[in-house]
Amino acid sequence: MIVERLKKLRNLMRERNIQAYYIPSSDYHESEYVDNHFKAREFMSGFTGSAGTLVVTQDDAGLWTDGRYFIQAEKELQDTTITLFRMAEEGVPTIEEYLKNAMPQDSKLGFDGRVVGVKVGMEFQKVLSEKNIEIVYNEDLVDLIWNDRPAMPQGKAFLLELKFAGKSVTEKLADLRKTMAEKKVSNHIITTLDDIAWIFNLRGSDIVHFPVNLAYAVITTNDAFLFIDENKISKEDKLKLNADNVTLKPYNDIYEFVKVLEGEVLIDPVKINYAIYNNLKSDIRKVQEPNPAVLCKAIKNEIELENTRNSHLRDGVACTKFMYWLKNNISTMKITEIDAADKMQSFRKEQENYIEDSFTAISAYRENAAMMHYRATEENHKILEAEQLYLLDSGGQYFDGTTDITRTIALGPVDEEIKRHYTAVARGMLTLSNAKFLHGVRGLNLDILARTPIWDLDIDYKCGTGHGIGYVLNVHEAPNGIRWKIVPERNDSCILEAGMITTNEPGIYIEGSHGIRIENELITREGVKNEHGQFMYFETITFTPIDLDAIEPKYMTEKEKQYLNDYHKLVFEKISPFLTEEEVEWLKIYTRSI
Amino acid sequence: MIVERLKKLRNLMRERNIQAYYIPSSDYHESEYVDNHFKAREFMSGFTGSAGTLVVTQDDAGLWTDGRYFIQAEKELQDTTITLFRMAEEGVPTIEEYLKNAMPQDSKLGFDGRVVGVKVGMEFQKVLSEKNIEIVYNEDLVDLIWNDRPAMPQGKAFLLELKFAGKSVTEKLADLRKTMAEKKVSNHIITTLDDIAWIFNLRGSDIVHFPVNLAYAVITTNDAFLFIDENKISKEDKLKLNADNVTLKPYNDIYEFVKVLEGEVLIDPVKINYAIYNNLKSDIRKVQEPNPAVLCKAIKNEIELENTRNSHLRDGVACTKFMYWLKNNISTMKITEIDAADKMQSFRKEQENYIEDSFTAISAYRENAAMMHYRATEENHKILEAEQLYLLDSGGQYFDGTTDITRTIALGPVDEEIKRHYTAVARGMLTLSNAKFLHGVRGLNLDILARTPIWDLDIDYKCGTGHGIGYVLNVHEAPNGIRWKIVPERNDSCILEAGMITTNEPGIYIEGSHGIRIENELITREGVKNEHGQFMYFETITFTPIDLDAIEPKYMTEKEKQYLNDYHKLVFEKISPFLTEEEVEWLKIYTRSI
Repeated sequence: MIVERLKKLRNLMRERNIQAYYIPSSDYHESEYVDNHFKAREFMSGFTGSAGTLVVTQDDAGLWTDGRYFIQAEKELQDTTITLFRMAEEGVPTIEEYLKNAMPQDSKLGFDGRVVGVKVGMEFQKVLSEKNIEIVYNEDLVDLIWNDRPAMPQGKAFLLELKFAGKSVTEKLADLRKTMAEKKVSNHIITTLDDIAWIFNLRGSDIVHFPVNLAYAVITTNDAFLFIDENKISKEDKLKLNADNVTLKPYNDIYEFVKVLEGEVLIDPVKINYAIYNNLKSDIRKVQEPNPAVLCKAIKNEIELENTRNSHLRDGVACTKFMYWLKNNISTMKITEIDAADKMQSFRKEQENYIEDSFTAISAYRENAAMMHYRATEENHKILEAEQLYLLDSGGQYFDGTTDITRTIALGPVDEEIKRHYTAVARGMLTLSNAKFLHGVRGLNLDILARTPIWDLDIDYKCGTGHGIGYVLNVHEAPNGIRWKIVPERNDSCILEAGMITTNEPGIYIEGSHGIRIENELITREGVKNEHGQFMYFETITFTPIDLDAIEPKYMTEKEKQYLNDYHKLVFEKISPFLTEEEVEWLKIYTRSI
Repeated sequence: MIVERLKKLRNLMRERNIQAYYIPSSDYHESEYVDNHFKAREFMSGFTGSAGTLVVTQDDAGLWTDGRYFIQAEKELQDTTITLFRMAEEGVPTIEEYLKNAMPQDSKLGFDGRVVGVKVGMEFQKVLSEKNIEIVYNEDLVDLIWNDRPAMPQGKAFLLELKFAGKSVTEKLADLRKTMAEKKVSNHIITTLDDIAWIFNLRGSDIVHFPVNLAYAVITTNDAFLFIDENKISKEDKLKLNADNVTLKPYNDIYEFVKVLEGEVLIDPVKINYAIYNNLKSDIRKVQEPNPAVLCKAIKNEIELENTRNSHLRDGVACTKFMYWLKNNISTMKITEIDAADKMQSFRKEQENYIEDSFTAISAYRENAAMMHYRATEENHKILEAEQLYLLDSGGQYFDGTTDITRTIALGPVDEEIKRHYTAVARGMLTLSNAKFLHGVRGLNLDILARTPIWDLDIDYKCGTGHGIGYVLNVHEAPNGIRWKIVPERNDSCILEAGMITTNEPGIYIEGSHGIRIENELITREGVKNEHGQFMYFETITFTPIDLDAIEPKYMTEKEKQYLNDYHKLVFEKISPFLTEEEVEWLKIYTRSI
């Protein structure tokens, strides 16, 4: 099947005199998750992993992927004639090196310029210019072969009411135009779906877990153009958008539209695709900076914050109910990892304003929890037993907020070592939550507060401590985060500003044994201001007990115990009004002072 | 007097058709401290502050300095006709802006290219090119006026024995040439005095507190040239240097020497002066990177570390004896801030291998200690009394190491608030000293460990927590340090490598009331290595009691008390063998467990 598809692609390439064709895994917007419509690389190679890139020449085809997927790719590429290139292994060429070597002088490299980021495309241009290789980016050849290709997502869009958005589209556009004026640009092209959703107070359902619609936007000094399939927007919402002076245009029109822009254009060089970039007039002045919306969106306004607190309260009720249910039924019911995740979802569904989950839950028992991105499947999952630890990382999209919470729960007796580990993770999480710091501090200054109790045990977790989170948007949002290493491409080490929301989720993962993660969300707030500067602190907005059955107080300082007791007191105050009598009795015990 | 000097300078300028002359505060090596010979700006302006720049035109003269010096400069510039430009104040032009405005088209800017860094010089070039202004950098006009100019420093140089240096010159040159080969350069010019001292195992006495001599060096694939006044080196040392294939040349010959270099040259663009840079052939390939010696020098070898430990032990004995002396004499003797510093120095002088102090001691009583860079003078100092806090920040240069230590000492009863502050500073210092972290961590990740107890009191100290320190070299050394903000020009945020030595000196400074700083030095060491990575920890090498008279245990956690008790146990073990019987009895009390 794959061989047949490759043959068809090579025929198309031959007709167009294209010597190599490049197929990455992206959509047109560099989104974190992509709809099935965009899974061209999977269609052409048979490889189903989330990260991978296919390159096809007349004689050869290669798939590049990283260490997470070597075993899977090897299996899935059998009988496809495609060679697996193990990225970052010694002696394995990069795609650029491969192309530079494999392509003849004066030949052509083809790709769909909409799914290639401008950075990657420009890098190709640079590397291949030595051989005078031309880039042809205006045709999606896979589309010509893929007869039963899933249609473009047709999710409905809706305007977020002002009571949820907190700021009108008119105000947001005015702010953006002020920034554009400061930067002396007359046009701003935006291709990132969450920035567009935020600016136009528009949410949707084109991508699972990520309540946005496929769209582009161009904001000029006087006009705002939203490129989106009109069928997705109700008549009423269209009128409202028109009232905000927003002009709707068909989704694909952006590519012709940008060809005639004049003056200056503000674009995000990391996010914009190669086709849009190259369709711009060659003499237009390009100001290449992160979208101003990124920072504006990250600093939630007071209404967004108040709504977020409310949605987290309901989310906490759902999680607490789940924890009660699990603890009380584990000995008498057969519960699989999948059942448990479903049950958690059902508690969320009962809550007001629930839209969908904010990501696929990680529901992992015992050693499965040591795999940070484990996913239980019908074929491969565990049945929970009345002992040791179970980890559930899940979240909800609500009309008034996005949540992300992890609790690791003792289903019965737990080993002493596990208690030591569990207590260390809780100590780290609590110490970071209670940090007080000067304005100017970044996540990389704070990370060690969460990590110290874990490093003290000669253990590390191989990921950041926390990430920014959107408001009825992506569960991973730039530019705030908590990570000790400086990783520029992550864009998560900005100064922590008041109103930003960040997760706090240290963990311990012992391969083949157990995994522990405890995750709360934090709002950065302004504290005392005096001659020393503006002090900041975190407000915790996640309320669900940290399982005292796995806590060993002897490993905690008095201050850490105080942090835990104070937190549990708040959990009881906030959550108990929404529980049944039995649940309240139980919660009293699970939020007791230690 | 100043007016007369300016008149002479203007005559010289007129003769040479130079419209503006620029006089900064540097020596030829961008050194932290400069010899009196180099104080041309002070000679020409009368302004004696350490930071300031003079610009003279035919009609005008301006002095630029920063906020620390506004009051002093105003006073000292009276009757000089020189205008004070308050840097960073609104509406005050930068020197570039001033020159661009004041200088006519096609005119000439003059300066001594040896005292201007290449970065500053190139910036002038760029800004002034619009007006086609030429830069004349080959003449030191001030030298022609300054009849009684102090001679160039004539300090003797000496080779550090191998038992002190730990690595031979031949080995160091071989390492450097390996790096040069990797970077594909045939020449490496070095102008930084500490790098040169380190490479050639040479120490000297041209600059007070900083045991180096004025020198330049050029290392080529086969040769090594050391540009230094030959009279400074003994015959015996000359033979040794020759044996290491080092060719000596007169100090000033560097400027002609670099004119004929061919091939490629490795230079540090931040440290090299404008004259050397511009004397290079225009077509020579310049690789502009920090000197490789910076990192090599910062990672002390095993012998340097062992020697450093020994010198710190002796330094600790001197400091402990001083503390005993001060506590026991304060009620009965008249002791000024100056007396106390002198006494401290006299205890150091008694120690083996002592060369000189590593910087001018900060000896500050009560509110004087709130001024971070306070200096007691004959005209202006305090007499110590038997109450409240006294701060002494001092250090020694020994043949086997450089020390830097601060202790704040209670001279009698102290206020309750001061105890709370003192205890917070001690807690921060101790927590940082006991950090365990993964390799890859930088000072900016760790800073908060020292600062948390202080930030928790809504207080901050407006400086980094620590700096790198040289080995029988500069007391401030790049590229390691501990600071939460990223300040690129400080170059003190590198990854903490095993063998680096860094100070740990948090503080609290309350204007008009008191200042507290407690400073130990730390060696970064490798700890456990396992599947999580290479763990690192700090070895404390400074041993002098932290004054228990100012510690309030109720503000400390059990762990912090343990840190303090463990430290004091070590102090007693290490220092008591070198004390008198009475001192030992006293030390027992001052290192008791709390």
